[in-house]
Amino acid sequence: MKEAPADNIFGKILRRELPSWEIHSDELSYAFLDIFPQSEGHTLVIPRSYSENILECSTEELAACMATVRRLMPAVRRAMGAGGITVLTNTGIEAGQSVPYLHFHIIPRHGSDKVSLYTPGAMLQEEDARRIQQAIRAELH
Amino acid sequence: MKEAPADNIFGKILRRELPSWEIHSDELSYAFLDIFPQSEGHTLVIPRSYSENILECSTEELAACMATVRRLMPAVRRAMGAGGITVLTNTGIEAGQSVPYLHFHIIPRHGSDKVSLYTPGAMLQEEDARRIQQAIRAELH
Repeated sequence: MKEAPADNIFGKILRRELPSWEIHSDELSYAFLDIFPQSEGHTLVIPRSYSENILECSTEELAACMATVRRLMPAVRRAMGAGGITVLTNTGIEAGQSVPYLHFHIIPRHGSDKVSLYTPGAMLQEEDARRIQQAIRAELH
Repeated sequence: MKEAPADNIFGKILRRELPSWEIHSDELSYAFLDIFPQSEGHTLVIPRSYSENILECSTEELAACMATVRRLMPAVRRAMGAGGITVLTNTGIEAGQSVPYLHFHIIPRHGSDKVSLYTPGAMLQEEDARRIQQAIRAELH
């Protein structure tokens, strides 16, 4: 298990030094709400073992993330009443990667949405976060 | 090996009933230039065995696609002089999935680009395609 650099924000979330809206947790991966969501239910999946991006992680860590992504997608989709889902990962600041810790975005999509690859959404508010978290987790169980 | 429906455009590409700008080919996956590129070098990776989307493929097919994505990313990045790469897959028409065949987008990113999740780029022209294909394949070998 590789530790993230001490000041890495997702490392802090994993060590619970920073709060997050947990959606799913297992031995190899962790999922939580993006606090600058592109749309309601925008969720991030990260490996517990640190890698900066998708090129650096092991095959096993990547497989674990993809398994979690696939497990969460139907729940996110149903909970948000979304017609579709975009799954993406950015590598490099110029690609819009804002945190140097591998993360997969699960973004609920609606035909008429304004999802953008590079403009962060408005910050997630607590009331919304709680409602969204509960809706997704209810679909997981 | 599952066959795509007869009229599926990516199935036709795999059967060579339609041309494509091949970037990479192996037993389990195939990669070629997107003809409506978001940026130069925009490449698609598909499994040879048909699945409609990322939720429907087997763990092995998904792993094969991810291996190809990771193999191509550095070559695409170097060939295009891109600062970053976005990898994404859309599930469902409302997410912008235009072809009902699982495909991963490898999109070279530049800090100032206008990459959009849902507006296709201008159609790829033959001269450009040939140059881009050669540049990426040169980085692969």
